[in-house]
Amino acid sequence: MVEPANTVGIPVNHMPQLKDELDIVIPTIRNLDFLEMWRPFLQPYHLIIVQDGDPSKTIAVPEGFDYELYNRNDINRILGPKASCISFKDSACRCFGYMVSKKKYIFTIDDDCFVAKDPSGKAVNALEQHIKNLLCPSSPFFFNTLYDPYREGADFVRGYPFSLREGVSTAVSHGLWLNIPDYDAPTQLVKPKERNTRYVDAVMTIPKGTLFPMCGMNLAFDRELIGPAMYFGLMGDGQPIGRYDDMWAGWCVKVICDHLGLGVKTGLPYIYHSKASNPFVNLKKEYKGIFWQEDIIPFFQSAKLSKEAVTVQQCYIELSKMVKEKLSVIDPYFDKLADAMVTWIEAWDELNPPTKA
Amino acid sequence: MVEPANTVGIPVNHMPQLKDELDIVIPTIRNLDFLEMWRPFLQPYHLIIVQDGDPSKTIAVPEGFDYELYNRNDINRILGPKASCISFKDSACRCFGYMVSKKKYIFTIDDDCFVAKDPSGKAVNALEQHIKNLLCPSSPFFFNTLYDPYREGADFVRGYPFSLREGVSTAVSHGLWLNIPDYDAPTQLVKPKERNTRYVDAVMTIPKGTLFPMCGMNLAFDRELIGPAMYFGLMGDGQPIGRYDDMWAGWCVKVICDHLGLGVKTGLPYIYHSKASNPFVNLKKEYKGIFWQEDIIPFFQSAKLSKEAVTVQQCYIELSKMVKEKLSVIDPYFDKLADAMVTWIEAWDELNPPTKA
Repeated sequence: MVEPANTVGIPVNHMPQLKDELDIVIPTIRNLDFLEMWRPFLQPYHLIIVQDGDPSKTIAVPEGFDYELYNRNDINRILGPKASCISFKDSACRCFGYMVSKKKYIFTIDDDCFVAKDPSGKAVNALEQHIKNLLCPSSPFFFNTLYDPYREGADFVRGYPFSLREGVSTAVSHGLWLNIPDYDAPTQLVKPKERNTRYVDAVMTIPKGTLFPMCGMNLAFDRELIGPAMYFGLMGDGQPIGRYDDMWAGWCVKVICDHLGLGVKTGLPYIYHSKASNPFVNLKKEYKGIFWQEDIIPFFQSAKLSKEAVTVQQCYIELSKMVKEKLSVIDPYFDKLADAMVTWIEAWDELNPPTKA
Repeated sequence: MVEPANTVGIPVNHMPQLKDELDIVIPTIRNLDFLEMWRPFLQPYHLIIVQDGDPSKTIAVPEGFDYELYNRNDINRILGPKASCISFKDSACRCFGYMVSKKKYIFTIDDDCFVAKDPSGKAVNALEQHIKNLLCPSSPFFFNTLYDPYREGADFVRGYPFSLREGVSTAVSHGLWLNIPDYDAPTQLVKPKERNTRYVDAVMTIPKGTLFPMCGMNLAFDRELIGPAMYFGLMGDGQPIGRYDDMWAGWCVKVICDHLGLGVKTGLPYIYHSKASNPFVNLKKEYKGIFWQEDIIPFFQSAKLSKEAVTVQQCYIELSKMVKEKLSVIDPYFDKLADAMVTWIEAWDELNPPTKA
């Protein structure tokens, strides 16, 4: 049986890397008691809390954490009519936090994620590992069989082209989960007792041209490199679909990273995922997505951005046009989603006006 | 410090899987004392020993192993003028063993590879893991973040298209190495003391469209699915290059597997690699390859086989034509290699006449 780490007695890290360059974004509907356990690792950083659901509710945040909190009223006030692109009653609302941040890096984590142990029993400082992943290059053009070649004790193996060894900038660090795996509803129903107990001590670059299922539970990224593509779509209240927010973002992000020559890493760090969500509720949210993804994935696999698209925003707008053109035939929802993608970029640019050269 | 396992006292496996369907191919120039350590795992299987170098030398094989041995005289006798496609004074000669085998599966291992320990200290039965890898499907069309979805305790994660979950047949299982990593000469020179001590408990499919550096030290494959593409090229005696035999095979194999919809897995099992080869000697063998691979890899990355190529042989002959056309400009060596690729297929078909339908 895998258990979360005990972090009581671990002193708060007083030399935190990127302290003033990183925000932690947490979507929530409840008191953030889970942060107690993360205190040694996360307390030095600034939090952006995106409160979902009833805005009149008060969310308690453990003492000592520095945070700003936005509820639905705040989102409506700040974005005006453009607030329509931010989901409600779904953790997809977290992407509002990416937009209001002014930092270079984002780490986002769910409030049912605890600190994992590595095989030696040591508490895993997930954020520290994400920062490592983001600050060292990726190698998307050729597979390295010893995994991350930039890690201590590893390198590029024989036969790896020397011209590719500088790598490219890493835009995304996708972390994994011990205990409750991130399964869809059908798999949850079939394997209700399956727990992930395997700690795989590896980080790797997802090769260029390959899509992956990006989970938003334990995720970090470089906002300057890829932020405007980290839109979590229209989910939850009033939408025909849920639980595809992070997937949607992941597909868009990967296509754009491939186009712009940026890297996406997956593997370490692990968090301990404590609660399995209800598979019946999940099935209701997911079932359209389960059909739709059979068309969406080939769409993204064949999506080609033009040479003119050189910024993330330009890429994203191109992608929104393709979504409208190619996916609206599946369901009118994609027409609405394509419009929301444009609204998202408009809102992003409004809150993040381009700095003059 | 990582050490090999002690296998003394481990009983010989008397229920070996695929006993009559798998040959173990070992290229060597010395007595095969290393097999003592492998006895519990490998003794039940048939060995094909390809003796390199001086054919008058006698190779001692530990008692109890069932084997056939071929030296250069045997190769010349069996293949006649077509023996020119089999390298001499280079471990590339091992591919002769693939050709004379009549079995469905091949496991090939170098004679400086010992039994590795897993993190719990248990001796790793490498062949058993290779068989597992080969008998379960691959998933080359979409990345699974929890690694091999077919492994016990794992599955496809949320967002993985259901239509792709059946996977495809696995043609190749590429195992890794603890202790001496498989580095090129420049990396060996720069990091003479680096040892691989990280046991990464994962098997994964290398995605479609992504090339990898295939090492021949610890490798298994399905001869029926991909055998004719496992040609280790012209290396060693009389050739301008060495140490690219397995790389060459890997590039050809991956392009053909991608074309035919077959899978390539990498990761477990580990062997313990005992001896670092001399980096100065290696540099001499490799240095042309180090230049050439900068052109060879883009060549393979863009190689497109025709729809008409539906057998491995047809794919390989197409590839040989492209090599002649596109790579001969780098060096006349590639012209010779392209011819040898054709000779190899002719020899393969001679020794493995197609069975009538």
